[in-house]
Amino acid sequence: MDKKGLLIVISGFSGVGKGTVVKKLVQDYGYSLSISATTRPPREGEIDGREYYFKSREEFMNLIDYNGFIEWAVYVENYYGTPRAFVEQELAAGHHVILEIEVQGAIHIKNQYPEAVLIFLTAPSAEELRQRLLGRGTEEQAAVEKRMRRAIEESEDMDQYEYIVVNDDLEQCVKDVHAVIVAKTCMIERNREFMKEMKAELKAL
Amino acid sequence: MDKKGLLIVISGFSGVGKGTVVKKLVQDYGYSLSISATTRPPREGEIDGREYYFKSREEFMNLIDYNGFIEWAVYVENYYGTPRAFVEQELAAGHHVILEIEVQGAIHIKNQYPEAVLIFLTAPSAEELRQRLLGRGTEEQAAVEKRMRRAIEESEDMDQYEYIVVNDDLEQCVKDVHAVIVAKTCMIERNREFMKEMKAELKAL
Repeated sequence: MDKKGLLIVISGFSGVGKGTVVKKLVQDYGYSLSISATTRPPREGEIDGREYYFKSREEFMNLIDYNGFIEWAVYVENYYGTPRAFVEQELAAGHHVILEIEVQGAIHIKNQYPEAVLIFLTAPSAEELRQRLLGRGTEEQAAVEKRMRRAIEESEDMDQYEYIVVNDDLEQCVKDVHAVIVAKTCMIERNREFMKEMKAELKAL
Repeated sequence: MDKKGLLIVISGFSGVGKGTVVKKLVQDYGYSLSISATTRPPREGEIDGREYYFKSREEFMNLIDYNGFIEWAVYVENYYGTPRAFVEQELAAGHHVILEIEVQGAIHIKNQYPEAVLIFLTAPSAEELRQRLLGRGTEEQAAVEKRMRRAIEESEDMDQYEYIVVNDDLEQCVKDVHAVIVAKTCMIERNREFMKEMKAELKAL
C-alpha cells in the first residue's frame, strides 16, 4: 500500500549461514539484494559484482569521499560498504532491498532509515554455532577462535535488533524472515495513507 | 522460545470475512480458538459451543459478576464476552489463542495483555466492503445501512490496531495474518531469555 520499498538488514553470527539464507530469500521471494563493496581479496570462486564489488583501498576511499556508501565499516582489517545508488533506486521503485551487513553497519542504517527492519540470525545454541565454524573447514584454528571471540561481541549487539530468527532448518528460517517482512508491510505505520482513503471513501458512500 | 502463548486479537469491518479467515487460521496452523459467549439468539445452523456459547441474559450477567470474562461488550443490543478460563489455560500451555472480537473489546484486551497482537481485517476498498454486505443477503436493507454506519465508526478505530491486513484473496489474507504472528514470536522482546542464555553459553565455551 505504501509505495516505497523496505530496507531489510540481515546480520548474525559469523558462520550462522547468513549468505545461504539471503540467497534463498532472493530466489524464493524476489527481493532485491544489495551487493557490498569490499577491499577484501576475492576468495576462490567469488566473482566481482556477485559476492562483492571488489575494490582497491584507493577506490574504496574515493567512494567514501563521494558519499557513495550508505554505511561502511572495517571488519577483520578490511573495508566493507553498502553502495548508496542501488539501494535508493530500488526503494524508490517500491522493491524491498536486503542488505547483509554486520552489527555496526546495521545501527548506522537504522539511524538513516528509521523504517529499516533489523533482523539478527542466530544458531539454536552457542555449541551449534561453534560446530558450524569448525565444520566449515575453510578457516584455520586461529581464525575460528577469532570468530568465536567476535561472536561474544556480536552477541552483546543482538539487543540492537528488532527481530531474532533462528537458523536451525534453512527452509524454516527463510520462511520466518519472509514472515517478518510481510508483517512489517502490514504494520499500521505503513498503512496510514490507505486508512485515510478508506475512511474518506466510507463517508462518501 | 518464550514459553507462553500469544493472544491474537482479530477485528475488522462487519462483512469483511473475519469468521472465514479465523476458521482457516485454526485449520491450517492449529491455533487455539476462543469461542465467545453471547446473549444473541442462535442463527439457523449455529451450534452452542461451536459458533458461540449461547447464554441467557441472566447467565451472562452472572458470569460478569464472577469475573468470568476477560472482556465483554454490547453490540447491536446483545452481549458478547470472552471466557477467561480457556484463554488463560491455553496461553499458559504455550498455545497461541485467536480471539475474534470487536473494537472496544480489542482495546480492553490490550490493556490487560500488553503482549497481545491486534490485527484489523479490511476489505481492499470501501466499495468492495459495501458489495460484500449487500451480497451476503442475510440482512435486510436497514441492517446493511446500520452496518455501513457502524463501519464508519469502526474505521475510526483502525488506528488502535498494530497491523492492518487486507482480505482480498482468502488464502493470501490467512498467510499474511500467520506471518504477523510468526513475526511477533521473533520480536526481540519475546527472546530476551534465549539471548541471555546464548550470551552466557558463548562466554563459557
